Amino acid sequence: MTIETGERGVHVPARADDRQAFLDDFARMSTFGATAAGGVDREAATDADAAQRKWLAAWLTERGFQVRFDRIGNMFGLLELVPGAPFVLAGSHMDSQPRGGRFDGAYGVLAAAHAFDRLRRLYTDPSCPTRPAYNLAVVNWFNEEGSRFTPSMQGSGVFTGKLDLADALATADVAGVTVQDALGAHSMLGDDVFPLDDAGRFRDDRVAAYAEIHIEQGRELDKAGVTIGVVPSTWGANKYEIGVVGWQGHTGATAITDRQDALYGAARIVVALRELAETYGDELHTSCGQLTVYPNSPVVVPREVHMHLDLRSSSDDILAAADRDLTRMFAEIEIAADVRIEKRFAHTWKGHDYPAGGVALAEAVIGDLGFRSMRVRTRAGHDSTNMKDLVPTVMLFIPSVDGVSHAENEYTADDDMLDGVTVLTEALARMVEGALSASASPASAPPGSASPGSD
Amino acid sequence: MTIETGERGVHVPARADDRQAFLDDFARMSTFGATAAGGVDREAATDADAAQRKWLAAWLTERGFQVRFDRIGNMFGLLELVPGAPFVLAGSHMDSQPRGGRFDGAYGVLAAAHAFDRLRRLYTDPSCPTRPAYNLAVVNWFNEEGSRFTPSMQGSGVFTGKLDLADALATADVAGVTVQDALGAHSMLGDDVFPLDDAGRFRDDRVAAYAEIHIEQGRELDKAGVTIGVVPSTWGANKYEIGVVGWQGHTGATAITDRQDALYGAARIVVALRELAETYGDELHTSCGQLTVYPNSPVVVPREVHMHLDLRSSSDDILAAADRDLTRMFAEIEIAADVRIEKRFAHTWKGHDYPAGGVALAEAVIGDLGFRSMRVRTRAGHDSTNMKDLVPTVMLFIPSVDGVSHAENEYTADDDMLDGVTVLTEALARMVEGALSASASPASAPPGSASPGSD
Repeated sequence: MTIETGERGVHVPARADDRQAFLDDFARMSTFGATAAGGVDREAATDADAAQRKWLAAWLTERGFQVRFDRIGNMFGLLELVPGAPFVLAGSHMDSQPRGGRFDGAYGVLAAAHAFDRLRRLYTDPSCPTRPAYNLAVVNWFNEEGSRFTPSMQGSGVFTGKLDLADALATADVAGVTVQDALGAHSMLGDDVFPLDDAGRFRDDRVAAYAEIHIEQGRELDKAGVTIGVVPSTWGANKYEIGVVGWQGHTGATAITDRQDALYGAARIVVALRELAETYGDELHTSCGQLTVYPNSPVVVPREVHMHLDLRSSSDDILAAADRDLTRMFAEIEIAADVRIEKRFAHTWKGHDYPAGGVALAEAVIGDLGFRSMRVRTRAGHDSTNMKDLVPTVMLFIPSVDGVSHAENEYTADDDMLDGVTVLTEALARMVEGALSASASPASAPPGSASPGSD
Repeated sequence: MTIETGERGVHVPARADDRQAFLDDFARMSTFGATAAGGVDREAATDADAAQRKWLAAWLTERGFQVRFDRIGNMFGLLELVPGAPFVLAGSHMDSQPRGGRFDGAYGVLAAAHAFDRLRRLYTDPSCPTRPAYNLAVVNWFNEEGSRFTPSMQGSGVFTGKLDLADALATADVAGVTVQDALGAHSMLGDDVFPLDDAGRFRDDRVAAYAEIHIEQGRELDKAGVTIGVVPSTWGANKYEIGVVGWQGHTGATAITDRQDALYGAARIVVALRELAETYGDELHTSCGQLTVYPNSPVVVPREVHMHLDLRSSSDDILAAADRDLTRMFAEIEIAADVRIEKRFAHTWKGHDYPAGGVALAEAVIGDLGFRSMRVRTRAGHDSTNMKDLVPTVMLFIPSVDGVSHAENEYTADDDMLDGVTVLTEALARMVEGALSASASPASAPPGSASPGSD
């Protein structure tokens, strides 16, 4: 292999077959949990998820990466190039929504694996003119989607000390299977891969930086015809678990005026939620994705409904105002439907900036490679949302056609995927060589606080 | 035993221990599928339902009744007193709603069993001055509730030729278990107990009449302080299966204006349904008891919702008008929520009179026994709703405290239950001796037509 610095200072060489190898691997990966309509159904710790992880483990092992699982089922592919040095992590998640798309998450893990494999080739070639400062770790986070086990971003949440490990392991799906049992059944539970501090999160002296690439799941890149998005900040989110409690009755015999119909109360919440979004324009997204009726019999007035509400906004002030609006709406609906409404936060995060150093590095790489980019705020949560509060982080997007995501017709063009791998590879090379470590790490910020923009 | 004609021509003797025996049996029966809150959870062909049927079979067998199951799991306790003569049937159903009450249905089966057992004692006593014209059959209809397997009144529906046997056996619950498999697993499938005609329904020359007693499930008797209700007619019902079809999306990333949220459409239907009921006052009951969301993930905009709507009215005209209103509402909601709504009838019956002869007989018996009664139209469907179209039928109610039903706190006082058994016993004695057979049987009316009131 000839190491070339390439045009504009780029130094990671690509082989002629790299592009096809990536597309072949992506096609293979998309067969795990594949649906008839072109999507995947591969919820966390299901057979499909486990089969895919096994395939990825073999892929990594063949290329010299050591595969390990941590205590919450995060999967790592470790390559130690500098004995004892910290690691640069890159990856995303391979679990999907039920009947979700094949790009969401999975693309980012495969992109990180290919990028680090190219760096392995680079740094193990004696003619390489540069040296890595850090080691390489591909990461496939456990349960980013949060559909089978709530909340989402669970693996990275535990890794960053934002979620309690024991609580996470005890979380059960609707069939009563816990995370612990589901991971155990597939031999996906291990020990601490990275040493933990007293707060139960990874020690930042062992993780130097993090990078993730993901499909945008929105329309902005697609509309603008731009290949790469650099994520400077996230939307905040309030997620609620709601219980609506009424009284069971007979759909025929119980007079309308006597009803305490929990589903009627819940339906009014869903309708009011949409009206709330319309009040704030495109600055607030409101959703009810999960609603379960008890006893759910055709001839019984429902006694209880459990719902999961999801409010997201670019503005923490709007989120706070929407929370007050919800409280008022619930009081009105309790009277109108003669039900009791219980509201509690399931998960909440404020809108945050990504570390400025990561944004600058990404934009420099993109400029050097000659791609067009734009900054795109992320409305969805990602594992990088957790990581960015602790270490220098780069978050990249590639386009989603028509912004479709969490759906079987999610689509990103091959060229966009390949360009994304190229950018990620170069960004990781610079991170591995220490590009982000000269500036202050944001790791001293308390988790959950606004990230300092100093790097 | 001394047979007395009793005051006012009553001739069925009661033993001193009959009352306590009934209450003891009722208490025992209520242990099958008992819930902590005092109700029962005994859906059709579950283990609890099967255990209770086994208990009833032993009870009947001990007393000389021959226990048989038919092809749809209806359970009969037959006692042939007049070789070759037709049978008078009496009973109700022992299955319950999920977390339902212990009186609904079960009371009527036990009341019929006790009433017929008293008649057995009467007619097998050589000193009895009267003779039966017909034989006795206690019946425990399969799946009256329709919660596990849709539609309701399934056993009596097949028995009366209103439902197709093969269709009913192929009906599956949400876990995919069919009626055929569930009944077979509990050895509750048999042969034709009564010979069938070419239309697949019982031959009316083998069934002389039918009687059923049931809790009212409404407030009228309780409010009026009256013990016995005589049912002269039913409300009609339209039941619909609704599919709301949208497009799956990401709750964070998908813009509100791009959403095709199936749950938002479904919620608007539930709210509009309540408004529809309010338009027609107490003459229309509207409900959605069952609503299932796909994929039902906290972070996914729902792609599809399946709902079961239930409209009931005393007026067939109002039901027809409400059906037109629904069609209009659905068209509006399709536009407002950008979803597609599929509507189809699951089950429908028109408001019907019960045969006048049965009403007159019941009122004569009640008068002779010195009880107060009133006529109460039934809003709920019952197995007698099917039977009344084919044979002379008596339908009786006893009070439900506060009208509560399909709920664990359903309650009827002991004295009301015992008075009900007394009235049913005497009515059955007269039916068995031929009281309803002199008049024209309504059995010549086509099924589903309005019943003639000539008997």
